[in-house]
Amino acid sequence: MSNLRRGIVAPAIVLLLAATAAPLSAQAPAQSPAVSQPVPSPPLATLDAHRVVPVPANVTVAAGEPFVFSANTKLVTDGPAELTRTGEYLARILRKSTALRLPVSGFKRGSPSAGNVVLLRVDTSAVASVGTAPTARDEGYTLDIAADTIRLVARTPAGVFFGVATLRQLLPWGIEAEQSALRLAPTVSVPPGRIVDSPRFAWRGSMLDVARHFFTVDEVKQHIDLMALYKFNRLHLHLADDQGWRIAIASWPKLTQVGGSSEVGGASGGFYTKADYAEIVRYAAARHIMVVPEIDMPGHSNAAIAAYPQLGCSRPTPNIYGEGTQSAGVYTGIRVGWSALCPDKALTWRFVNDVVREIASITPGPYFHIGGDEVEVLNHTQYARFVERVQAIVHKHGKTMVGWEEVGKATLRQGSIAQLWRSDTALLAVKQGNQLIMSPGPRTYLDMKYTPATEVGLRWAGYIELRTAYDWDPATYSAGLSEQAILGVEAPLWSETVRNLNSAQYLLVPRLPALAEVAWSAQAARSWEGFRTRIATHAARWRLLGINFYASPQVEWAP
Amino acid sequence: MSNLRRGIVAPAIVLLLAATAAPLSAQAPAQSPAVSQPVPSPPLATLDAHRVVPVPANVTVAAGEPFVFSANTKLVTDGPAELTRTGEYLARILRKSTALRLPVSGFKRGSPSAGNVVLLRVDTSAVASVGTAPTARDEGYTLDIAADTIRLVARTPAGVFFGVATLRQLLPWGIEAEQSALRLAPTVSVPPGRIVDSPRFAWRGSMLDVARHFFTVDEVKQHIDLMALYKFNRLHLHLADDQGWRIAIASWPKLTQVGGSSEVGGASGGFYTKADYAEIVRYAAARHIMVVPEIDMPGHSNAAIAAYPQLGCSRPTPNIYGEGTQSAGVYTGIRVGWSALCPDKALTWRFVNDVVREIASITPGPYFHIGGDEVEVLNHTQYARFVERVQAIVHKHGKTMVGWEEVGKATLRQGSIAQLWRSDTALLAVKQGNQLIMSPGPRTYLDMKYTPATEVGLRWAGYIELRTAYDWDPATYSAGLSEQAILGVEAPLWSETVRNLNSAQYLLVPRLPALAEVAWSAQAARSWEGFRTRIATHAARWRLLGINFYASPQVEWAP
Repeated sequence: MSNLRRGIVAPAIVLLLAATAAPLSAQAPAQSPAVSQPVPSPPLATLDAHRVVPVPANVTVAAGEPFVFSANTKLVTDGPAELTRTGEYLARILRKSTALRLPVSGFKRGSPSAGNVVLLRVDTSAVASVGTAPTARDEGYTLDIAADTIRLVARTPAGVFFGVATLRQLLPWGIEAEQSALRLAPTVSVPPGRIVDSPRFAWRGSMLDVARHFFTVDEVKQHIDLMALYKFNRLHLHLADDQGWRIAIASWPKLTQVGGSSEVGGASGGFYTKADYAEIVRYAAARHIMVVPEIDMPGHSNAAIAAYPQLGCSRPTPNIYGEGTQSAGVYTGIRVGWSALCPDKALTWRFVNDVVREIASITPGPYFHIGGDEVEVLNHTQYARFVERVQAIVHKHGKTMVGWEEVGKATLRQGSIAQLWRSDTALLAVKQGNQLIMSPGPRTYLDMKYTPATEVGLRWAGYIELRTAYDWDPATYSAGLSEQAILGVEAPLWSETVRNLNSAQYLLVPRLPALAEVAWSAQAARSWEGFRTRIATHAARWRLLGINFYASPQVEWAP
Repeated sequence: MSNLRRGIVAPAIVLLLAATAAPLSAQAPAQSPAVSQPVPSPPLATLDAHRVVPVPANVTVAAGEPFVFSANTKLVTDGPAELTRTGEYLARILRKSTALRLPVSGFKRGSPSAGNVVLLRVDTSAVASVGTAPTARDEGYTLDIAADTIRLVARTPAGVFFGVATLRQLLPWGIEAEQSALRLAPTVSVPPGRIVDSPRFAWRGSMLDVARHFFTVDEVKQHIDLMALYKFNRLHLHLADDQGWRIAIASWPKLTQVGGSSEVGGASGGFYTKADYAEIVRYAAARHIMVVPEIDMPGHSNAAIAAYPQLGCSRPTPNIYGEGTQSAGVYTGIRVGWSALCPDKALTWRFVNDVVREIASITPGPYFHIGGDEVEVLNHTQYARFVERVQAIVHKHGKTMVGWEEVGKATLRQGSIAQLWRSDTALLAVKQGNQLIMSPGPRTYLDMKYTPATEVGLRWAGYIELRTAYDWDPATYSAGLSEQAILGVEAPLWSETVRNLNSAQYLLVPRLPALAEVAWSAQAARSWEGFRTRIATHAARWRLLGINFYASPQVEWAP
């Protein structure tokens, strides 16, 4: 039995909220048939956090009345100016469905600190309450809910934002409606209690492969909204591969003119202008998500070589395997490993320097991902030297290098990061004292099919049903790893089979929320049974938010 | 039991097709686990058309071998140059998943007309085979499938295109995969037989309300692709309402600057430039779908009045009903009936003339939809005069007027079209000798919820489960109607609750395919039991195409 069902029968605090406002309907004639049965969207009966994903570290239920959002509710922010943005983010969510005013103001002497107030506060002394580990300091929060006040306190604005994500899930799912689902209901309420929470890992990432299939800025924003629901903080964009080059580089204009003209399957592709990229960065930053750009090199580089053939030692032969059509030289098949930038040409290094320089200059975050995977046409020494030289260029332009685990074959700078995906070379990086992002294919590659019967996706890393994505511990996944060696967890979505956002979400949801919990919640705090009970209550929210999902039979979805 | 299940057990012609091509996978290490169980995507065992929606008029099963697509298959077009576009459309669908070359060429003396050839032909004498009614002449087709040739013949290129839509559904659903699902399979085949088919109604429409929520060009194209699957031929775009103005008008730039800045719920809205609109028109025309633009007037006009307050007799008071926030004067609530252009000002008529002129000049189709619904702030005479004056302007700019059924209160020109939605005023148009587009709310308003338990949608016109959308006859829907009075059927999707394409598709599918059959197939040829069996086989296709849908419990979906 799901929590939502239990919520419905709890007698005391359940409000039956009209799901539509019949007399307000557009095109509604006066004689429109009266339809009275509402869809209940009940508030939590008690603060048992049976809905919250990722599961919070510590939940204390309190006695007493719930906090009730009303016409008098004020949002008060106390801290850096950017807190106002988070206050408005919360207010917009609530205003949409409740029509409450919910004014947002900065704290001043005399500001109300109680009396139907939601207080969002940054307090650098708040470390005591959320723990002393670096991730707790940076992103932990304390959420106190009482009848007259909600107090959300963190050491950083990011912590406050993640606390808002928790608060959002404690509200009835009807608040996610795009129209006045709750407008006729008197109140939206939250039961009293206290949540103290902080993440296990600092890097909680989702990767979109916008190279194999292009995703529009609008689609990427919708993906960022999904990430924000589940406290992700890194959006890794795979911006270039054999099939497409997706970011405008002023000094090499053919990269997008030619390399951006196609995609897997032969459709017309696309690319981001620098203004588009800046808009994605801005939209993500407002949700405390950092964009990590990846230009895959020296392999996976046919789109660049199609645009500038001199970048190859010889022209790659995309039909070498007997399949794959081409449009203006851009590959539309899905084989890997056959293309490489020529490591011995001065032109290649001018190209790498220009690309890293231009992208670094429009990327506020500290990371630049160089790819580095699956290079079959260079020998070991050529490969290692290539990575070391790119690493120096990335460093020169003020960024920290991230690369797929193969980069461990090179000599890494302190702080460079390797991304585990196939496990066999990742330990080379750990032995050099570098940290790992955990993206093991059989657990986190969300382009894998759920089961043999689900149509979309590939299967070479195995089928990944929901429990498989959820039920593992990054620290014990591979021999030779330890908690300290792990910077975080990331779920890549390669897009060979993924033609649009709808297909992407079918593969992402509910596995991405499962991996959010792997990345955020302490191993001891989480369990498969707990997760499947909590995630069952999210389906109504996804439908209202316009998020497609796979209704895994491993979950008893709320009706 | 669904047809798909039966197909699987038919022993003779079933090919088990690998759903993914394991050795081709990106990021696939050599040691990737072997996974061998394929997803079967069987061809039809016989040409029983148990998959095709809308159901064809006449299907004859033939004995003999199937037509097999192979490396030798050629597509030959015989008719106007635009047939090449349809040939390429079919070839692109097949190439994507099969990697067959499928060259498309025009017919010349000596061209093969048999021997593994798909022949697409326009023949004005083909009327005998598809019937003599105007719709049959304009859009009917004959599809002959034999072991050595597929011959698709119609009197018009549109007929050929609709025949291709049928052929597509006769192919295994695996052909819709975005990658090489079938690439390792030896063949794709179609069983032999003959289909003679033509539409019941000339107007088969889908309306998108891009005013309440804006849809990007990319989203509209995805919607057009869905329409093309089911032989729709009219895309009605509701381009202006109280909450938004979505098309650039050079002579009135604030319409989009102000009126395009917001939408229901307060998000940032958007609008189409003329280039965007032209791209939508082009993309639709390539699929034989005509764009019908609507500017709703004199009511539903607050977005225009927010931009140019002089267009109102007085400034509308959007808070008159006590709800609805505004951004720069644009309304973000969902009440109706309170706004109107001022009928007595010269400025209003300059505005109407400019808007009709500019939109007519970029719209190749013959129709201009003027809205005309739900005007509560003008009296009967004011309203009728307004519609008559707009009708004259539409005519002056070379277009035929379409309006919601209330326009029947005015004196209509011969050929003007009324769109039934609430039934009480539609007969006024019929009595004047004008035809109706049938969009009765309780059957075709696809923004209505399926059931009380489905979250998205409104309910004022009633719940519309799949059978309700399917199981009615336009000719007998209302007393006083007849087949001759009906131009066609259209399914509006108002977007108060619809925030993105995913939400739209959740409401549209499978009801839009049901209404495609209401509009295309003869009443005697169709039945609920037949439809629910056929549509069950479409789910796999939708998932591969990235189309969201509601898995109605009224259908036994194929697994």
